[in-house]
Amino acid sequence: MTNETISKPFKRILLTGAAGGLGRVLRERIGGWADVVRLSDIGEMDPARAGEEVVKCDLSDKAAVLKLMEGVDAVLHFGGVSTEHAFEDIVQANIIGTYNLYEAAHKCGVKRIVFASSNHAMGFHRQTEVIDADTPVRPDGMYGISKCFGENLSRYYFDRTGLETVCIRIGSSFPEPKTRRMMVTYLSYDDLTELLRCSLFQPRVGHTIVYGVSNNREQWYDNTKAAHLGYRPKDSSAAFDHLFPLSAEYPAKDDASTIYQGGPFVTQGPIYKD
Amino acid sequence: MTNETISKPFKRILLTGAAGGLGRVLRERIGGWADVVRLSDIGEMDPARAGEEVVKCDLSDKAAVLKLMEGVDAVLHFGGVSTEHAFEDIVQANIIGTYNLYEAAHKCGVKRIVFASSNHAMGFHRQTEVIDADTPVRPDGMYGISKCFGENLSRYYFDRTGLETVCIRIGSSFPEPKTRRMMVTYLSYDDLTELLRCSLFQPRVGHTIVYGVSNNREQWYDNTKAAHLGYRPKDSSAAFDHLFPLSAEYPAKDDASTIYQGGPFVTQGPIYKD
Amino acid sequence: MTNETISKPFKRILLTGAAGGLGRVLRERIGGWADVVRLSDIGEMDPARAGEEVVKCDLSDKAAVLKLMEGVDAVLHFGGVSTEHAFEDIVQANIIGTYNLYEAAHKCGVKRIVFASSNHAMGFHRQTEVIDADTPVRPDGMYGISKCFGENLSRYYFDRTGLETVCIRIGSSFPEPKTRRMMVTYLSYDDLTELLRCSLFQPRVGHTIVYGVSNNREQWYDNTKAAHLGYRPKDSSAAFDHLFPLSAEYPAKDDASTIYQGGPFVTQGPIYKD
Amino acid sequence: MTNETISKPFKRILLTGAAGGLGRVLRERIGGWADVVRLSDIGEMDPARAGEEVVKCDLSDKAAVLKLMEGVDAVLHFGGVSTEHAFEDIVQANIIGTYNLYEAAHKCGVKRIVFASSNHAMGFHRQTEVIDADTPVRPDGMYGISKCFGENLSRYYFDRTGLETVCIRIGSSFPEPKTRRMMVTYLSYDDLTELLRCSLFQPRVGHTIVYGVSNNREQWYDNTKAAHLGYRPKDSSAAFDHLFPLSAEYPAKDDASTIYQGGPFVTQGPIYKD
Amino acid sequence: MTNETISKPFKRILLTGAAGGLGRVLRERIGGWADVVRLSDIGEMDPARAGEEVVKCDLSDKAAVLKLMEGVDAVLHFGGVSTEHAFEDIVQANIIGTYNLYEAAHKCGVKRIVFASSNHAMGFHRQTEVIDADTPVRPDGMYGISKCFGENLSRYYFDRTGLETVCIRIGSSFPEPKTRRMMVTYLSYDDLTELLRCSLFQPRVGHTIVYGVSNNREQWYDNTKAAHLGYRPKDSSAAFDHLFPLSAEYPAKDDASTIYQGGPFVTQGPIYKD
Amino acid sequence: MTNETISKPFKRILLTGAAGGLGRVLRERIGGWADVVRLSDIGEMDPARAGEEVVKCDLSDKAAVLKLMEGVDAVLHFGGVSTEHAFEDIVQANIIGTYNLYEAAHKCGVKRIVFASSNHAMGFHRQTEVIDADTPVRPDGMYGISKCFGENLSRYYFDRTGLETVCIRIGSSFPEPKTRRMMVTYLSYDDLTELLRCSLFQPRVGHTIVYGVSNNREQWYDNTKAAHLGYRPKDSSAAFDHLFPLSAEYPAKDDASTIYQGGPFVTQGPIYKD
Repeated sequence: MTNETISKPFKRILLTGAAGGLGRVLRERIGGWADVVRLSDIGEMDPARAGEEVVKCDLSDKAAVLKLMEGVDAVLHFGGVSTEHAFEDIVQANIIGTYNLYEAAHKCGVKRIVFASSNHAMGFHRQTEVIDADTPVRPDGMYGISKCFGENLSRYYFDRTGLETVCIRIGSSFPEPKTRRMMVTYLSYDDLTELLRCSLFQPRVGHTIVYGVSNNREQWYDNTKAAHLGYRPKDSSAAFDHLFPLSAEYPAKDDASTIYQGGPFVTQGPIYKD
Repeated sequence: MTNETISKPFKRILLTGAAGGLGRVLRERIGGWADVVRLSDIGEMDPARAGEEVVKCDLSDKAAVLKLMEGVDAVLHFGGVSTEHAFEDIVQANIIGTYNLYEAAHKCGVKRIVFASSNHAMGFHRQTEVIDADTPVRPDGMYGISKCFGENLSRYYFDRTGLETVCIRIGSSFPEPKTRRMMVTYLSYDDLTELLRCSLFQPRVGHTIVYGVSNNREQWYDNTKAAHLGYRPKDSSAAFDHLFPLSAEYPAKDDASTIYQGGPFVTQGPIYKD
Repeated sequence: MTNETISKPFKRILLTGAAGGLGRVLRERIGGWADVVRLSDIGEMDPARAGEEVVKCDLSDKAAVLKLMEGVDAVLHFGGVSTEHAFEDIVQANIIGTYNLYEAAHKCGVKRIVFASSNHAMGFHRQTEVIDADTPVRPDGMYGISKCFGENLSRYYFDRTGLETVCIRIGSSFPEPKTRRMMVTYLSYDDLTELLRCSLFQPRVGHTIVYGVSNNREQWYDNTKAAHLGYRPKDSSAAFDHLFPLSAEYPAKDDASTIYQGGPFVTQGPIYKD
Repeated sequence: MTNETISKPFKRILLTGAAGGLGRVLRERIGGWADVVRLSDIGEMDPARAGEEVVKCDLSDKAAVLKLMEGVDAVLHFGGVSTEHAFEDIVQANIIGTYNLYEAAHKCGVKRIVFASSNHAMGFHRQTEVIDADTPVRPDGMYGISKCFGENLSRYYFDRTGLETVCIRIGSSFPEPKTRRMMVTYLSYDDLTELLRCSLFQPRVGHTIVYGVSNNREQWYDNTKAAHLGYRPKDSSAAFDHLFPLSAEYPAKDDASTIYQGGPFVTQGPIYKD
Repeated sequence: MTNETISKPFKRILLTGAAGGLGRVLRERIGGWADVVRLSDIGEMDPARAGEEVVKCDLSDKAAVLKLMEGVDAVLHFGGVSTEHAFEDIVQANIIGTYNLYEAAHKCGVKRIVFASSNHAMGFHRQTEVIDADTPVRPDGMYGISKCFGENLSRYYFDRTGLETVCIRIGSSFPEPKTRRMMVTYLSYDDLTELLRCSLFQPRVGHTIVYGVSNNREQWYDNTKAAHLGYRPKDSSAAFDHLFPLSAEYPAKDDASTIYQGGPFVTQGPIYKD
Repeated sequence: MTNETISKPFKRILLTGAAGGLGRVLRERIGGWADVVRLSDIGEMDPARAGEEVVKCDLSDKAAVLKLMEGVDAVLHFGGVSTEHAFEDIVQANIIGTYNLYEAAHKCGVKRIVFASSNHAMGFHRQTEVIDADTPVRPDGMYGISKCFGENLSRYYFDRTGLETVCIRIGSSFPEPKTRRMMVTYLSYDDLTELLRCSLFQPRVGHTIVYGVSNNREQWYDNTKAAHLGYRPKDSSAAFDHLFPLSAEYPAKDDASTIYQGGPFVTQGPIYKD
C-alpha cells in the first residue's frame, strides 16, 4: 500500500529519535499517515519539509517533553540510547526520558504509543529457545534493562489510564544482516514499517508485546499472542544466504555470544569496563 | 476440488437449517458428497432437486427429529436460532432441539456430526487476546450459551457412545465483511465448505473444536489443537481492505463492542430488554 | 465459629432446594448469617421458624421466581434435580429454572449467588487425573450437562452485569462415604458450610469455580486457582478408613465406574434406557 | 530457632534501610547470623551496639555505596523508598540506588543479595487471581515499577556474573493487618525472618522470586516455584479474624481498591496529583 | 497402621532386590499385605520365614524371571543396579532385566507393578527448579537413563495391555540424610512404606509417576499430578537439622554437584573413567 | 540448493545405516557436505565412490564402533533396527549400539550427531492430538522404546559433555504415502535432506527434538519449539490426494491402528507373538 493511496488519518504523529538510524528510515515512510509528522531528537536533524515539524528535545527534560507532546495524537517512540552504554547515560535517556514521555502523553490525551523495545530485553535466553510475549524477561545489559523498564511503565499507564502501547521487541533492522546471528533477528525496513502500521491503525491494541523480526527461516520468537495485530512479515533474511555460506565450524562451547540470543551484547555490560 | 471430480461417498447426509443463510449456501455446494442430501428446516425451503430430500421439521419435536434421522449417515447441524434472541426461543430451538438431534443420531447409529457452534461461545474474551480450543468459554449472550450447551452435549455423546463431532466456532460467514470486526472473524463460503469437507472426511475426529475463520491478517484464534483436521483456509479478508480504509479514530475506552470479541452481541442480551 | 458468635450480616438470604438433602442440612446451619433465611423448594418443607420464610416455588415458573427473589441479598442455589434424570426433567428444573433464577436475581439487584454445581460436570475425566478450574469440562450425563449450563450462564451474568457467582463443584456430601469412590469425593457438612461461608463473605469473588471436597487423602482436584476464597477444609474421609479396608481386588479394566471420576453416573445416562 | 542456638555463619551482613519500619524490626532479629551486621540508612539510626556497624549512606551516591560494601558477605536490601512517591524521588532511591548497590556488590565479590521487592510489582492483577513467580508483572505505580526494575537488574547480574538474589515480593509486614486486604497480604515478623533465613542460608538460590506472605487463609500467591527455598510460614492472619467480622457489604463494582491486588496503591500514582 | 491391624489382601507379592538396602527394609514391613511374600535377588538372602518364599534369580535370565513370576499378584520391583555403574552392567540388570520382568508379568496376568525409579532420571535439572511428573527427563548418568527406560517400558505395557504401574522416583531413603543435598531428597522408611501401600491398594493407578520424598522443608518436586494416589508423607528431614547447621559457605559457582538435583551423580558417569 | 553450489564444510561425516532405505537415499544427497562421507552398515553396501569410505560395522561391537568414529566430525545416525522387532534384537542394535556410538563420539571429540528417532516414540498418542517436543513420550513398541532410549542418552551426553544432538522423530519417509495414515506422517526425501542440512549447519542446536514431516495438510505435530532450526518443509502429501479419495467409511471405534498415531505399530509388539 503506497502512501499515495491512503488518506492521512492522523492530525499529528510524533516520532522521537528521528535523527537515529531507524528514525531517518521511518521519516521517509510514514509521511502519508498524518497531516503533520513532528520529528524530535537530541541531535541534529534535517530541516522540516512539507508536512513535518522538527523539534530538538532532550527527553530527560520533563518540561520540554510536555511541550513537545502538545497537539500530538500518537507517538512512535524511537528516542533514547539504542545500544549498550554506561548506566548513567541509560538512566537519563531511557528511564527518565521514557517516564517523561508517558507522563506527557497521558496529560496531553495521547491515545496510543508504539514503543521501540528490543530483543535485548530477552537476550539471556538461549539461541535454542523459542520465546513468546509472556516468557519471563532476561535482559542482557543496561540497555535491555531500560527496555524492560519501558515495557513495565507502559503496562502501568495502560492499566491505570487506558493509554495503549504496542511494545516492539525489535531484532536487527538494517539494510542487510551483518552477522550470522542477524540472520535470525533481521527485520527489513518494509516489515518494520508494516508492523508500525498495524500497531498504529488497529482499533484496539491494549498493551501488546510483539517481536519485530521478518519471516526469517530461523525463528527464536513466537508471535502467536500478538496475532490480533495482523502483522504478517513479507521479507526473509534467506535473501542474504550468500553472505553466510554453510560452514562446519561450530562455536566454542563457552562462547557466550553464540549461546545467548543477545549475541555480543551479553558481554558488553558496563560492569566489566573497570 | 470441484464436486464433479469426487465420488459421492455418503449415502445420505442431513443438513439442518437448510433454509437459513448458510444452509442455502451449503445446499449448492455439498451435493457431490452424498447420494442424497436431506434438507431440513422449520421454515420453507425450495423444492427438492435431484439427489435431495426436503423435510420440514421443528427440532424441538422429539418424535419428528427421530423420524428425520432415519437412514442418515452424517449430519451438518446448522439448524436452530442463529442470532441473539429471548431465552424462551433459544431453549426450544437450540437446547431442546440439539438434544433431540443428538439423541436421535445416537439411536439411528449416525457416526459423525458437524455442529455449527459460534464465536459467540467465546465473545467475552477481549479483542486483544488469542484463544484456542481449551481456553475457558465466555459466552456473550443466550445464543452463545446455547452453543456452549451444544459443545458440552456433543462431548458427552462422544465420551459415552463414541459418536464423533466437530464443533466449528463459526466467525462471520457472509459474502463480504460488514464491519471492521468482521475483518477478523470473516469466513469465506469456500473456506467454510473446505472446513466441512475436512470435518466430514477425516477418518478420525473424536470431539474436535475448531475456529471457523479464513486466513485473515488479524487472528484472535489459534487452531493448532485442531491441526489434525487438515483445514488450511485459502481466503483472507484482506481482499476487502478497501471497505475499511486506515483510520485514526480509536473507539471509546468503554465501547464494549470493540473491547470484546463478540462485538455488538455483548450488549444485545435479552436481560436488558426490559 | 458458631452461629451465636457472629452477627447476622445479610438481611435476607435465599436458599433454594431447601427440602433436599443438603438443603435440610444447610437450613440448620446458616441461620446466623442473615436476619431472614428464605427457604424455597418445589416440595414440602417444614414450617418456618423464627428468622425463616418458607416459599414453595417451581423454579421453572418465571413469574414465581421473580416474586421469590424480592428483597433477597444473596442466593444459595441448591434447587433443581440433583441426580441423573431424563433430559425432559432436567431441562425444566436445571436449565430453565436456573435461567429464571439468574434473570430474577439480576432484575432484583442481587449481588452474589453461590451455585451448587457438581463433580459430574467433570465426570468423564479419569480417576487418575488431577483437574483444576480451567480443565475443559467432561460432563457425565444430562445432570452434569445442566451443571455446565449453570456455570456458563453465571459466567455470562458476571461478564455482562457484574453479578458474582461461586460455582461449587460439589463432590459427595453425606454423613459418611457410601462407596470407595466417595472416599475421594467426600465433603463433610462442616466443610460444605465453611465453603459456603467463604463464598458468601469474601469481599470479591468475581466468577470462581471451586471443587467442594474435604481434605481427603486422595485428591482428584486442584483448588489452587480458588485459593483467594480462603477455603481450608478441616475434615477428611480418612476418618472412615475402617469402612473400606485394604483390598487386593482391582476393578475390571473396562469397568467404567472405576475408570472415570463420575463413577456409576457415567453409565446412567437416559440415552440407554430405551 | 533462637539466635542463641545458632553460630554466626557470616562475617558481615549489610542491612540497608535499617532505619525503616522493617529495618528496625530486622535489626533485632538477625544479630545471630553474622559477626558484624552493618546497618545503613539515609536517615538517623540508633547508635551501634556490640556486633553492629552503623553507616549513614545515600544509596544514590555511587562512591558512598561502593565504600559501604567493603568487607560485606551478603546483603539484605531493604533501603529506598517503600511507598508510592513522585517518580523523581523513586528514580534516585530505588533505581539509581539499586543499581549502585548491585554494581558495588559485584565489584566487592558479594555472593548473595536478598532484595525486598513488593506485591506492588503485581498490584494490577485482580484479587480473584492466583499468581506465581512467572506471571507477567503488573506494577501498580512508580513504586511497583521500581521494584520490577530491581528484579530485572538482579536477574541480569545473576545471568552475567553469578551473583545470586532472592527477590521477596513482600505483602504487608506489620504487627497486625490494618485492612481487610491485609488479611491476604499479611506477613508476620517471624515469618519474614524465617524467609530471610531460608534465602540467606540455602546453598543455592540462583535468582528466585518468592511471595512474602504468611500462611493466611486466603491466598493470591502460589509459591510452588520457590519450594526449593524451604520457606514454610508458621503464622496466619486468621489470628486477627476478630478485627474484620463477617460483613454482608460488598464493595462497589468499580471500586478499584478492592478489584486489584494492589489495593489503594492502584489509585495513588503521581500521575493524578496534578 | 500396623501390620497387625490389616488383613492380608494379596495372595502373593513379589519383591525383587530383596537383598538390597531397601529390599531388606521392606521385607520387615510388607508381610501383612500378602499371604506370601516372594523375595528375589541375585545375591544371598536370609532364609525364608513364615509367609515368605526366597528365590534367587538373575533378572537378566528371561526364563528364570518367567518362572519367578508364576502365581504372583503384584510386584514391587526394587531389583537391579541401584547406583551409577558401567553401562555394560546397567544394560543387563536394569534394561534387559526390567524388560524380562514386564514381559513375564504380562504373560502371568500380573495386574500391577510398583517400579523403583529414581530422582536420577531427572538429575540434570537444577536445584533451583521445581519439577513435576510431566517435566522432560534429564537423566544424570547410565543409572538414570536405565530408570527412564523402565518408565517408558512400563508406560508402553500400560497403554498396550492395561498392566498398571506406579513409578516412584525415589529420593534418598536411608535412616538419616548423609549430605545437605539429602535434606531435600530424604525419604523416611515409614513414608516409603506408606507410598508403596498407596501405590498397591488404590483401585486405579493407571500409569502414575510420583516423587518419593518425605515432607521435607525444601522441595524440588511437585506431586500434584499424583494426588490421586493419596500419598501424604508424615516425616521431614527437618528432624535432622542438627546435622547440617547454618553455614555461610556457598558452593563454588561451577560445582556441578550443588548446581544439579542429581548431586555428585552428575559427575560419576562411566564416560569419564577412561 | 544443489550440491554443486556449496563448499564441502566438513572433513568427514559418518552416516550409519547406509545400506538401509533412507541410508541409500541420503548417500546420494549429502556428498557435497563433506570431503569424505564415511558409510557404515551391518549389511552389504555398494563400493565406495570418490569422496566416500565404506566401513562394515556392527554397532553392538564397542571396539569396532570406536574405530569407526576416528577422524569423524559429525554423525548422521540412521543405523540399527528401523521397525518393530523382538526386544532381543532391538537391545543389541538400538540400545547397546547407540550407547557405543555416543561413547565413541564423545571420546573422539565429535561435536554433533543427528539421531534418527521416530514418530513411534509417541505412537500411543491419539490421531486427534497435536503434540510437541515436550509432550510426554508414549512409545508404541520395542522399537519406539529404543528411540526414547536414544533421545534420553543423547540428552545426557549433551548435559554432561556438550555433545550436541538433533533428534528427528521421523514420520514416514518414502517416495509416496502407502496408507492414509502416511498422508499425515509423510516426509519427502527433499524435506528430509533439508532437515538434515539445518540440523548439521546451524551454529548451535544444543539438544533439539523435532518432528520430521513435510508440510502436509493434516498435522499431528507442532514444531514451534524447534523453530530455531530453520526447517521449513517445501513438500506436502497433498500431492498424493489422488491415492486416497474421499471416503465415507469410518474405521471401527476400537480399531487401534486408526485411533493412535503409531498406526499398525501399536498392535505389532513382540509381546503378542507367543
